[in-house]
Amino acid sequence: MRTLKLTVAYDGTDFAGWQRQASVRTVQAAIEDALLPIERQRAVVIGAGRTDAGAHAAGQVASVRLESSLAADVLRRALNGTLPPDVRVLEVEDAPADFNAQFAARSKTYRYQIWTGSVLPPAVRRTTWHVPQHLDLERLSEAAATIVGEHDFAGFQAAGSDVITTVREILQSSLFAPSVADLVAGEGLEIGRMLRYDVTGTGFLRHMVRNLVGTLVEIGRGWRPPDDLRRILASRDRSQAGPTAPAHGLTLWEVRY
Amino acid sequence: MRTLKLTVAYDGTDFAGWQRQASVRTVQAAIEDALLPIERQRAVVIGAGRTDAGAHAAGQVASVRLESSLAADVLRRALNGTLPPDVRVLEVEDAPADFNAQFAARSKTYRYQIWTGSVLPPAVRRTTWHVPQHLDLERLSEAAATIVGEHDFAGFQAAGSDVITTVREILQSSLFAPSVADLVAGEGLEIGRMLRYDVTGTGFLRHMVRNLVGTLVEIGRGWRPPDDLRRILASRDRSQAGPTAPAHGLTLWEVRY
Repeated sequence: MRTLKLTVAYDGTDFAGWQRQASVRTVQAAIEDALLPIERQRAVVIGAGRTDAGAHAAGQVASVRLESSLAADVLRRALNGTLPPDVRVLEVEDAPADFNAQFAARSKTYRYQIWTGSVLPPAVRRTTWHVPQHLDLERLSEAAATIVGEHDFAGFQAAGSDVITTVREILQSSLFAPSVADLVAGEGLEIGRMLRYDVTGTGFLRHMVRNLVGTLVEIGRGWRPPDDLRRILASRDRSQAGPTAPAHGLTLWEVRY
Repeated sequence: MRTLKLTVAYDGTDFAGWQRQASVRTVQAAIEDALLPIERQRAVVIGAGRTDAGAHAAGQVASVRLESSLAADVLRRALNGTLPPDVRVLEVEDAPADFNAQFAARSKTYRYQIWTGSVLPPAVRRTTWHVPQHLDLERLSEAAATIVGEHDFAGFQAAGSDVITTVREILQSSLFAPSVADLVAGEGLEIGRMLRYDVTGTGFLRHMVRNLVGTLVEIGRGWRPPDDLRRILASRDRSQAGPTAPAHGLTLWEVRY
């Protein structure tokens, strides 16, 4: 029996999320189904993060236990030859026998993209939330920084979640405005601006990043003060936070072990 | 009667090109059909470049003559409210009565994207040609530069084209390797590299950019010498050039007037 570590990227637009469910297309099922004809065995692929329907991954990590004599690189090629083009295995590596992609993760980084221009360029529409309003980057950055450290994130958890503890540690939480030269052409067009939010933590609650982003956008619009995230943390009350930002702006960027 | 200049972006994946044709989805038809309920008149939208099926635009320009009393900005919003999300009007401006987007264009810039890594990240699969091989950037740059200036491009024209002259002037032709930090996560992964080819000219023959790229890739692989583009130009013989690169790597980037 071998334990393998897979690094996986996907365009989540046409997937009902990571986790296998009956009668819908999911990333976990796509990988498990691609393994079947190659390895002639049903194996369970465990992902580091169960991304929501419509959310993407640039560096999801998964573990799987298999009886396999294929070289890691050969298995990667065979998988990519079988998988649909919206999911790709970037790397296959042998891992220690007890490696579990979900429990062994030391940190995860999520990236959330927001387009603030009045027209959303079609090239980014699948991966970017369109908020056609001025958002104050300085205000947003100040707000984002307030969640770094260990906090109780109950106020940012999806309703109905059932976890033992809602305390999580955030290692990095920052906003930036990347260059748009690679996205849009022309000078002088009122084409607006991309904003990116990168957040790294030891763990995340369900919908936590999307709830943080929904609240940050209300802060950026001036509807809430920059220290409102701190107030919501203290309240531990989901009804205090802003709306859940849409899943399609979210990408699981990287998982570290 | 007003003449309007539209700046248009589209994801060409699900379009059979720019030009209206019976019973297929095209960008020109999408814009003309969106104008109909807004302005209650059938108008012909003339594009600066008739992009191929599957090719994209970040800054296509089109002209249209209309009886309209709508402010340019109101018309832009109305169009974007009616158009499907894979085509967007970035800007609407009033233009001189005789403005024709096709004939008035002084130069066009096309961008072609190539991914040379062994696995194509799903996020770029709709806009990037996958060439999983080492391409020598220095060799490619040297070759690309040889076509700058006025030349007879008959050797790079699609078979069966019927134009008065095959002489065109190229103002810029260069390759570069942009940062991939925005595309792929992880360090140490064998994820390869993006190459971009930008070419600006006063005009282009049918399939000219795609034929240039197909030939450049063979030069980058070492199958042809770097000065081969010059030899093909002199031959005026299409059979001397490389294969036509796929349309989905091509984006009409900008049109200048």
